[in-house]
Amino acid sequence: MTDLLKRLEREPCDSRHSLEEVLANVRFNGDGLLPAIAQQHDSGEVLMMAWMNREALEETLRTGRVYYYSRSRAKLWRKGESSGQQQHLKSASLDCDGDTLLLQVEQTGPACHTGRRSCFYLSLEADSARISSAALIDPDELYTKGS
Amino acid sequence: MTDLLKRLEREPCDSRHSLEEVLANVRFNGDGLLPAIAQQHDSGEVLMMAWMNREALEETLRTGRVYYYSRSRAKLWRKGESSGQQQHLKSASLDCDGDTLLLQVEQTGPACHTGRRSCFYLSLEADSARISSAALIDPDELYTKGS
Repeated sequence: MTDLLKRLEREPCDSRHSLEEVLANVRFNGDGLLPAIAQQHDSGEVLMMAWMNREALEETLRTGRVYYYSRSRAKLWRKGESSGQQQHLKSASLDCDGDTLLLQVEQTGPACHTGRRSCFYLSLEADSARISSAALIDPDELYTKGS
Repeated sequence: MTDLLKRLEREPCDSRHSLEEVLANVRFNGDGLLPAIAQQHDSGEVLMMAWMNREALEETLRTGRVYYYSRSRAKLWRKGESSGQQQHLKSASLDCDGDTLLLQVEQTGPACHTGRRSCFYLSLEADSARISSAALIDPDELYTKGS
């Protein structure tokens, strides 16, 4: 927890600080990454969680298109660049301890690489796990389109 | 990505597998932890993100009360045990690559240690960051009550 984040805890609604000052207090993890949760802005559906580095966060805020950092490919990616299923940013919020981001987005079609709307499709129930949603698009068709 | 998770991608809605089999495929990180997003089940508000180890996940599913793993205190905690602001589990879903959990919960009062309903209260705007919600309860009063 940084001193600024500690001070903000007691500040009233609508207080403002410079974006630069707050970004300097974002607590990226040891790999320089921050988890970012994407939520469809109007329905409230949580679509996915992925990782951002500082560059992905800045590009997202600057362009209004959501960028993440791929840990497996070790590079920045713009959501939808290979699937065509874009994410446009509506708003972004940092949490109290500065180490998680919540994005309100407008998601085109499925957010999930399986073709489902949301990545959270494995419901853990009393003694079984159930697939709780169907693909909107055949995943084989998802990765032939760019954006 | 495990073989089971890869197979589930193509399975239709309502397919079931044993809970034990799916839990064995949860991909905890190098510290044995998994990020868990808590969402208020009826309003859709994203309240917080915290970490679970295997024991926290199992206790949560078994008891219907949400447990997390505190990285700073290096121990399991039941949400609300010191603040009185409990989280009751409505449902839990794992994501497509088995490394993030989404919890639908019934949250009593504020989820945030600052007394705000949600931890995501720092809105990152064009050139400033704005505090977007007010405390429901004075945080000094939060940690005098158990649950």
